[in-house]
Amino acid sequence: MCGVVGIVGKSDVNLQIYDALTMLQHRGQDAAGIMTCQDGRLAQHKANGLVSDVFRTRHMQRLVGNYGIGHVRYPTAGSSGPAQAQPFYVNSPYGIALAHNGNLTNTEEVERELLQTDLRHMNTDSDSELLLNVFAHELLKQNKAKPQPEDFFNAIRAMHKRVRGGYACVAMIANYGIIAFRDAHGIRPLVYGSRETENGTEYMIASESVALDVSGYTIERDVAPGEAIFISTEGELHSAICAEEVSLSPCIFEHVYFARPDSIIDGVSVYKSRLRQGERLAEKILRERPEHDIDVVIPIPDSSRVAGQALAHNLNVKFREGLVKNRYIGRTFIMPGQQQRKKSVRQKLNAIELEFKGKNVMLVDDSIVRGTTCQQIIQMARDAGANKVYFASAAPAVKFPNVYGIDMPSASELIASGQSDEEVCKEIGADWLLYQDLDDLVAASQDGNPDIAQFDCSVFTGEYITGDVDEQYFAKLEAARNDSAKAKKAVSSDDTAVIGLHNGAVE
Amino acid sequence: MCGVVGIVGKSDVNLQIYDALTMLQHRGQDAAGIMTCQDGRLAQHKANGLVSDVFRTRHMQRLVGNYGIGHVRYPTAGSSGPAQAQPFYVNSPYGIALAHNGNLTNTEEVERELLQTDLRHMNTDSDSELLLNVFAHELLKQNKAKPQPEDFFNAIRAMHKRVRGGYACVAMIANYGIIAFRDAHGIRPLVYGSRETENGTEYMIASESVALDVSGYTIERDVAPGEAIFISTEGELHSAICAEEVSLSPCIFEHVYFARPDSIIDGVSVYKSRLRQGERLAEKILRERPEHDIDVVIPIPDSSRVAGQALAHNLNVKFREGLVKNRYIGRTFIMPGQQQRKKSVRQKLNAIELEFKGKNVMLVDDSIVRGTTCQQIIQMARDAGANKVYFASAAPAVKFPNVYGIDMPSASELIASGQSDEEVCKEIGADWLLYQDLDDLVAASQDGNPDIAQFDCSVFTGEYITGDVDEQYFAKLEAARNDSAKAKKAVSSDDTAVIGLHNGAVE
Amino acid sequence: MCGVVGIVGKSDVNLQIYDALTMLQHRGQDAAGIMTCQDGRLAQHKANGLVSDVFRTRHMQRLVGNYGIGHVRYPTAGSSGPAQAQPFYVNSPYGIALAHNGNLTNTEEVERELLQTDLRHMNTDSDSELLLNVFAHELLKQNKAKPQPEDFFNAIRAMHKRVRGGYACVAMIANYGIIAFRDAHGIRPLVYGSRETENGTEYMIASESVALDVSGYTIERDVAPGEAIFISTEGELHSAICAEEVSLSPCIFEHVYFARPDSIIDGVSVYKSRLRQGERLAEKILRERPEHDIDVVIPIPDSSRVAGQALAHNLNVKFREGLVKNRYIGRTFIMPGQQQRKKSVRQKLNAIELEFKGKNVMLVDDSIVRGTTCQQIIQMARDAGANKVYFASAAPAVKFPNVYGIDMPSASELIASGQSDEEVCKEIGADWLLYQDLDDLVAASQDGNPDIAQFDCSVFTGEYITGDVDEQYFAKLEAARNDSAKAKKAVSSDDTAVIGLHNGAVE
Amino acid sequence: MCGVVGIVGKSDVNLQIYDALTMLQHRGQDAAGIMTCQDGRLAQHKANGLVSDVFRTRHMQRLVGNYGIGHVRYPTAGSSGPAQAQPFYVNSPYGIALAHNGNLTNTEEVERELLQTDLRHMNTDSDSELLLNVFAHELLKQNKAKPQPEDFFNAIRAMHKRVRGGYACVAMIANYGIIAFRDAHGIRPLVYGSRETENGTEYMIASESVALDVSGYTIERDVAPGEAIFISTEGELHSAICAEEVSLSPCIFEHVYFARPDSIIDGVSVYKSRLRQGERLAEKILRERPEHDIDVVIPIPDSSRVAGQALAHNLNVKFREGLVKNRYIGRTFIMPGQQQRKKSVRQKLNAIELEFKGKNVMLVDDSIVRGTTCQQIIQMARDAGANKVYFASAAPAVKFPNVYGIDMPSASELIASGQSDEEVCKEIGADWLLYQDLDDLVAASQDGNPDIAQFDCSVFTGEYITGDVDEQYFAKLEAARNDSAKAKKAVSSDDTAVIGLHNGAVE
Repeated sequence: MCGVVGIVGKSDVNLQIYDALTMLQHRGQDAAGIMTCQDGRLAQHKANGLVSDVFRTRHMQRLVGNYGIGHVRYPTAGSSGPAQAQPFYVNSPYGIALAHNGNLTNTEEVERELLQTDLRHMNTDSDSELLLNVFAHELLKQNKAKPQPEDFFNAIRAMHKRVRGGYACVAMIANYGIIAFRDAHGIRPLVYGSRETENGTEYMIASESVALDVSGYTIERDVAPGEAIFISTEGELHSAICAEEVSLSPCIFEHVYFARPDSIIDGVSVYKSRLRQGERLAEKILRERPEHDIDVVIPIPDSSRVAGQALAHNLNVKFREGLVKNRYIGRTFIMPGQQQRKKSVRQKLNAIELEFKGKNVMLVDDSIVRGTTCQQIIQMARDAGANKVYFASAAPAVKFPNVYGIDMPSASELIASGQSDEEVCKEIGADWLLYQDLDDLVAASQDGNPDIAQFDCSVFTGEYITGDVDEQYFAKLEAARNDSAKAKKAVSSDDTAVIGLHNGAVE
Repeated sequence: MCGVVGIVGKSDVNLQIYDALTMLQHRGQDAAGIMTCQDGRLAQHKANGLVSDVFRTRHMQRLVGNYGIGHVRYPTAGSSGPAQAQPFYVNSPYGIALAHNGNLTNTEEVERELLQTDLRHMNTDSDSELLLNVFAHELLKQNKAKPQPEDFFNAIRAMHKRVRGGYACVAMIANYGIIAFRDAHGIRPLVYGSRETENGTEYMIASESVALDVSGYTIERDVAPGEAIFISTEGELHSAICAEEVSLSPCIFEHVYFARPDSIIDGVSVYKSRLRQGERLAEKILRERPEHDIDVVIPIPDSSRVAGQALAHNLNVKFREGLVKNRYIGRTFIMPGQQQRKKSVRQKLNAIELEFKGKNVMLVDDSIVRGTTCQQIIQMARDAGANKVYFASAAPAVKFPNVYGIDMPSASELIASGQSDEEVCKEIGADWLLYQDLDDLVAASQDGNPDIAQFDCSVFTGEYITGDVDEQYFAKLEAARNDSAKAKKAVSSDDTAVIGLHNGAVE
Repeated sequence: MCGVVGIVGKSDVNLQIYDALTMLQHRGQDAAGIMTCQDGRLAQHKANGLVSDVFRTRHMQRLVGNYGIGHVRYPTAGSSGPAQAQPFYVNSPYGIALAHNGNLTNTEEVERELLQTDLRHMNTDSDSELLLNVFAHELLKQNKAKPQPEDFFNAIRAMHKRVRGGYACVAMIANYGIIAFRDAHGIRPLVYGSRETENGTEYMIASESVALDVSGYTIERDVAPGEAIFISTEGELHSAICAEEVSLSPCIFEHVYFARPDSIIDGVSVYKSRLRQGERLAEKILRERPEHDIDVVIPIPDSSRVAGQALAHNLNVKFREGLVKNRYIGRTFIMPGQQQRKKSVRQKLNAIELEFKGKNVMLVDDSIVRGTTCQQIIQMARDAGANKVYFASAAPAVKFPNVYGIDMPSASELIASGQSDEEVCKEIGADWLLYQDLDDLVAASQDGNPDIAQFDCSVFTGEYITGDVDEQYFAKLEAARNDSAKAKKAVSSDDTAVIGLHNGAVE
Repeated sequence: MCGVVGIVGKSDVNLQIYDALTMLQHRGQDAAGIMTCQDGRLAQHKANGLVSDVFRTRHMQRLVGNYGIGHVRYPTAGSSGPAQAQPFYVNSPYGIALAHNGNLTNTEEVERELLQTDLRHMNTDSDSELLLNVFAHELLKQNKAKPQPEDFFNAIRAMHKRVRGGYACVAMIANYGIIAFRDAHGIRPLVYGSRETENGTEYMIASESVALDVSGYTIERDVAPGEAIFISTEGELHSAICAEEVSLSPCIFEHVYFARPDSIIDGVSVYKSRLRQGERLAEKILRERPEHDIDVVIPIPDSSRVAGQALAHNLNVKFREGLVKNRYIGRTFIMPGQQQRKKSVRQKLNAIELEFKGKNVMLVDDSIVRGTTCQQIIQMARDAGANKVYFASAAPAVKFPNVYGIDMPSASELIASGQSDEEVCKEIGADWLLYQDLDDLVAASQDGNPDIAQFDCSVFTGEYITGDVDEQYFAKLEAARNDSAKAKKAVSSDDTAVIGLHNGAVE
């Protein structure tokens, strides 16, 4: 998963982009980048690490200009090879930089065309580089000395025809402005807002509304599926639907886990969705075990806290912070002559014995993916003296990989893949395992905006909205993953440098 | 505030010290350091920054040896001048390194003696350097070619007579072992534990028990006031009470704010203390306003969450995470030609409108110090549509500075200094301000271990347990602070280097 | 001035490129870069600093591939703006990287065309970026899915028609090979050679033959004026003359000062040229002052040593190293509250009194540019007790700027600009100033290869071989310089980072 | 070998120390350090690398104070273990920092006493740390609250009785001043000078007079054997002979190779010594082969150039720079899967064919140590077409190790150890090998100052002036070397960090 932001302002935008990226940091902690433009010259800084580590005063001083884009990065399921920070850049035509959240599903075909027909060189395996080049090539084909908004939209139109998958992007065109677009199903979120200054209106486009909040922007609306929004350097906003068949089918996992609770995505408050998830879970419990003996609800911090509170409240049992999260996680060192230590859950969580000893505890988490952490926490609860350990998942069983930009393990690593709930329960060692029903999950989100006809729930159902994801696709993905894993092993653990060449600024 | 750890193990202790420091990181995020000893040679690495940033594989590889000490640092009230990482080191006698949590109150007199009588050079303003040198000098006076535990204890005895204040320390003596000691009032915490390995018993001494938990050590007991514990390199433990008049009077602020909730300090579970704080607050509310109209209790994350839960539960009102903390705080950049931005509370917290709109909310925090953040959060609650905003502090009004190692502003910056509760309430803009009563706070902690006769509550009462803190003392402190502030201004914001010379390893 | 190298080998070429760059380091100490290609993916590392500082093991490990190019950089007269390391890269078409030595004289016109007609974005003021883009654009116009050598040559042909100036370049085309080319006058040097390995022939192209020597390559020949040489990834060599009117007119300043003495440029041994310069100078002295009273010839180290030896030998006077060069020059620090120190010549040279006291010394240097160092050294000679101080320049008076890639001050800063030899002599404080005659200088070089019809001697004559350099040109240059100087001042002295974006790898 | 400098000035001395260290850089390129003192607080920066790399503006800004010391470091023969930068520091008594050039020969005994009797901890294997601690301990024994110059001299007196070897040191005593001292034989050089400022006289003490030259100090005189010179912070100079039996026996290798030619050591101009070495060599040649057929003398740059010029001049043959030194030497990379490359002499030197082809060349070097480079250069001369290759060494055959601070290989690695001149000649492949006679070498130096009764010529004769160097000593040395070599192998080549703890400033 990644986070993107673009701003067309009336003064230097570097600090605003920086603040926006810190608000989007939960969407990606691997790498961060900012590009700005002044007098047609692009300035850039990007590197591996957290936003607060990547940018120093000397970098910010160079990031001049009234418009710019930013990115925080998380390696996505489809990408193999070494980590690469965004934005990416091509100089033909006009000078275009792009930051991308999502994942393409027809990369092979797109890459072949780019190389053989468009004669464009890709230097990475990143689908973001592909997306940028498709857009660039289609824009070059418009062949305009002074391109107009419609030219940009036409290029986007042509691009949509060539690529499939989930993508929400911001792109900066030197001397012209910023264009943002979202795939035809609106799988990944993208919202924009404005604020007034004495010099005129400033616009921000971002993955989540929290990025707008921090700098005092007011939400205008979400970018629609298949829509492109162009804001010129002068601050004029143009928009057009550029995809042929559009239908809003946002990724429900944003509501489950990914997005910040204080964000509003496609009109839905994530916080409220999660409250409703907790309420629905409570209903299910009361339905299934009206005589339940739960003494206390304990959330696994931090993402399940909101659902957990509603769950406890509606069950009318105590809600307690019985697991303390260690906010400062250390590195894992590989010392010569010592066997590698497994990073145990103990380094991340510590149990407050008081809340477990002799009690029937219901642990609640947002979802269960691999199940290994889950299993360790249940054991930790037992070690702390719990009488019975129940486990509630605010989402249904995750049985399929995500192909639209959320980095999730392959099917074989998902604990619920091919196993019944009972089998999963046994494997994680719980006395009772309770999954949210899919209908309830969908309803919890849909209640916030009844206009959303459907959600992408592929990780639960295996039904992929783009219609091009099949067994063959996953086989390739698996192979790429394995290659990538091997390549990564060769790199020493302390070496966090981005490898290779990809249109970046030299420091 | 700082955190210290010392381990005498049966194999390399570097990774254990590292893990312990990450668990103590909340006690100091400014700097971190580790020293270990092998074959009489000390290895060291220390630098400014978080534990996870300071130590890389190459440093860990050099930190060899079966015994060592570690430190995380927070600048304390008494220190002026540039930041300095610990442990500190002197080579005469024997080679001694020391890590210190606390603050001395008679530094001038101690420094004078060291310079004029003991002919020892201090290269910093750190009271930790003083403490180390007093111990070293007193140990040198024992003049033993092969010192025994009793020699170390005698040196500690002589040291206690020369210094006053709060201090909990671990010191490593090359070739001999580790000695840990606590001041005569046990103001700062210090606990030790052991674990069995196939090669014998290993010991860890640390500021908080969570450091023991992570590596599977079992708590033996707290180090007693005035006690010294020496663990030889062979793993033999010796102990002795080395101060003449001892009485346990631990700092109550550890229970209010500083310590991790999952720690047990002087036999008291911090988590339980905080639950009882919330319960006592609820009683006071119900006593003062039996007909209260509170709709929801909202904690100011993270430290007030435990007390808040108990408060809400006992009031029987909803407890909601209405304020979302941004876990990724960015730097503050000073751009040329731009006015400096005030880091607003908005960059740290975001309000969930739903939980405020039209409601009477009770915000709860662990304490109120300067009151500025408090004021901004109340305004944020109003902006989010709150009907009434009540504010509860789990601690009484903070009216006096801390002189035993907690970095707190001077009296003039404390909002409650010289103001009534009503005046504070008005200044922060609350509709109702509720402070915990001191008796309730003390009881909340004392309930956990009735053997604790008294606590140091000086920040609330102005009564300092060491008896040597008066107006003159604060006047000097204030002057030193101002000088220090000026000196710091001269250093550029990006320059995080430790300045000056203090017995460290060159990298 | 810069140095370039390109290799198509039979195994990884990174170490060979590295060694070649250290041999070319005298051509540029500002920045260095290497790009290599494997499986169509480009790897790159470039940064400011010396070759030995820029490349570490971790960088070399990533620079995989059997073909690659390298560059060492010196800021050239025509470039304004912040420093930028090469190679440069564009991804359309094919993926092309280029390293350039020289300077274009019609950059404005070229840039306008690229922006307005070719729709290509330039992100720097570097003429190397222009050159790369002209080549790339012309190659794209060939529109070949599988380009052949002739396609590359055609693109070079079209490029020559669009650009003017001095340039010697190596360019790497991903998946295809390396192409090297030289401007129609052969102003800047470029030579290639080969070596046999058990896997076949390897080729190296470089600015100077010393780069070939170090790795055991045998010189094949110089690249001809207007010629392009393409070596495919398989190691097949193709060549073609691509400029319409060609005539060899190499820059004579390479022989005077720039090139290494052990290089052979356009068939001329630089060492022998310099010996002959010394011999011609001796003849002139004996002609002008047959009864001269010179006691000793003292070279100003290091570049005038060869000419000085021949001069002394032919005059039959002693040759002595009376000036000792300090090989370790420190930085100039600007301390707050201290006035800036002028870096005096004393920090670079120290006089051996013995060789000066009471003697008539003839100092010899390769040339006189600003005259300030010259003046200081003469004073140093007097301070050391010299009786008379004569000064010989192995080159004629430098009166005009260089526009083909040698970084020389503007006319107003040249001591000989608009001044007679007598005036210069007086200003530098010499008792006698002797300039080489231009005919003698030319002859000294031409003797090595009579086929060279003429040399570019513009810095002495003001006659520029490309015919497009006039007053207006210099006026613009001067303006750009001033802007650049101001921009550079804003950057702190310790900050050696390359600013801006230019297609580089993120570290 | 190392270089030391100490200054007591009237304003900040950091820049002067920096400049002095760049002038002494030839004495050690491994590490550099500066310590200064202001208001009794020491500031320090030291690290591995060249002076120009180690110190940045931010370091210089912290190095405040009117007195300070500096050091450049080269690992000496006697030291094992990882590299350690100086100055070293102890805080008892007074705060003393010391920088040392030389090597002790009775380290074992000194270390034992320090540990067992003085109770002082050594954290390195450095004899400099020993020296500092002996001085410190003896000074502490004076037990003065306000020590006077005589107290410092008494401590030096006691120190001389405890240590043996060659040492020239500067030490800074916080609040008091700087003391410099030289061993009883004056083996290592030490000179001091003064300069007048409007605020009074400033003093500099340094290893070589070139350090004084650069900042305009006038040489006062050399520090005498066994003498100590103390300059108080107020600028008062005191001196005393502190060793009991003194006799000047300086190391002749300084004149052969180590010192800069423009230095004057113990009253002898190094430059003149080298001229005389060349003259004596010429005499020997003319004596041995009056009918010699030498066509040209070619020096091996840089150290033999002066002797070479005199040699050529007195032989009346041409002197030519036939070997070009590459000033920019690259690193040696160890690439995985590639065999390590031998750094051949080709990367350091390149032959000018013209000067060799068909000629009888006499190569001249300052001395022959291992003989491997020598052999490669002779081969290079033959490859360049030389008819006959003669080799002259300005020093006699090096047959024994140096134990007074020059890092020279052990006897087994010296080509002349146990071999006749003829055997060496054959091994290096020369047609004629000519060594300087020892009497001639001594005379060449002694002519400059007839007061020098003798020189330490131990590397030629095996007679060690301190009288305590025997077979047993070398056996231990060899063992320590081997251990050290193994330890160093474990450290990766890119890791230039100084390991361990030794009283430095954390950066």
